[in-house]
Amino acid sequence: MKRTMGPSEKLYPMPVPLIVGMADGAVDVLAAAWIGTVCGAPPTVAVGLRKVRRTLELIEASGELTINIPTTSMAAVVDYCGTVSGRTTDKFAATGLTLLLGEAVGTPIIEQCPYNLECRVSSAMDLGEYRVLLAEVVGTRADEAVLTPDGKLVDAGKLDPLVYIPGTREYRGLGPKVADAYSIGRTVG
Amino acid sequence: MKRTMGPSEKLYPMPVPLIVGMADGAVDVLAAAWIGTVCGAPPTVAVGLRKVRRTLELIEASGELTINIPTTSMAAVVDYCGTVSGRTTDKFAATGLTLLLGEAVGTPIIEQCPYNLECRVSSAMDLGEYRVLLAEVVGTRADEAVLTPDGKLVDAGKLDPLVYIPGTREYRGLGPKVADAYSIGRTVG
Repeated sequence: MKRTMGPSEKLYPMPVPLIVGMADGAVDVLAAAWIGTVCGAPPTVAVGLRKVRRTLELIEASGELTINIPTTSMAAVVDYCGTVSGRTTDKFAATGLTLLLGEAVGTPIIEQCPYNLECRVSSAMDLGEYRVLLAEVVGTRADEAVLTPDGKLVDAGKLDPLVYIPGTREYRGLGPKVADAYSIGRTVG
Repeated sequence: MKRTMGPSEKLYPMPVPLIVGMADGAVDVLAAAWIGTVCGAPPTVAVGLRKVRRTLELIEASGELTINIPTTSMAAVVDYCGTVSGRTTDKFAATGLTLLLGEAVGTPIIEQCPYNLECRVSSAMDLGEYRVLLAEVVGTRADEAVLTPDGKLVDAGKLDPLVYIPGTREYRGLGPKVADAYSIGRTVG
């Protein structure tokens, strides 16, 4: 039996990366679950950020951002970055997160996150209290320790990405593999 | 040690909902991992679909879509809907998926998916071979069996949503809860 629940922005599951912005020597970081891939060529991510966020100011000033995928062991740090403002606190000093120079952009990546996307803002629009950015991914980087043996792909089990569940507001990890994509569908029909 | 991997649209994790479009008595469904929430008020989802997709034609004709969250037990059906074209195959006949009338929109939802978002397209833009839609969520519905005891929220463990891992192209389930959001961050700093 279906129950009517009203309008909601909840999707399942959600990623919850750390997003870094830097401009004029200032750098800040926030955690964002309102983000998703929207295009493969050019590789493009859409992210919605509240207009009051300081990290957004830095992103809009530089036209760049990095998206950094945290592990389950980073849940407390991610939660902290998502709930505290960089206007009043140095989040890097508080969390111990450290930065590495960007390669494809001038904005740094987070060393502790094993997968990193370097992005340039390609368009932006206002939506209520939010600013929706489309960002082209101009480079990615990964810890060698999370790659498949041939070094070509990320091994999701080794990556151990943090997962966000809205509503009940939980962080979770990934569960076991269920099936191979572009394959199991051949058993249907 | 970080390895440089080149531009890529991969995020971890990704949702992989079934998206339904209907117009002029025709209905079709596809699976889409290139989707994410981008705004809370109005609740808005961004989704990128290849311009050749028939489901996209139906969505643009009606201005509506539904987003239906599948369970891990639906991996084969989701994979089928993501890799076969509705121009040549009746995906509903092949998969056994059944439709329920929409409440907030005229487009139906998928009965077997325990969580459903009813959406109206609010804007659209071209990006390479893709069409990026912003869709306002005007209603949601959930199976009573996946709700928390108070009936107010979705229990992620009961929902058991299918998770997509790009690159290695795997479907996975959710892992165990790691921490409470808006809470564990207080242990930092």
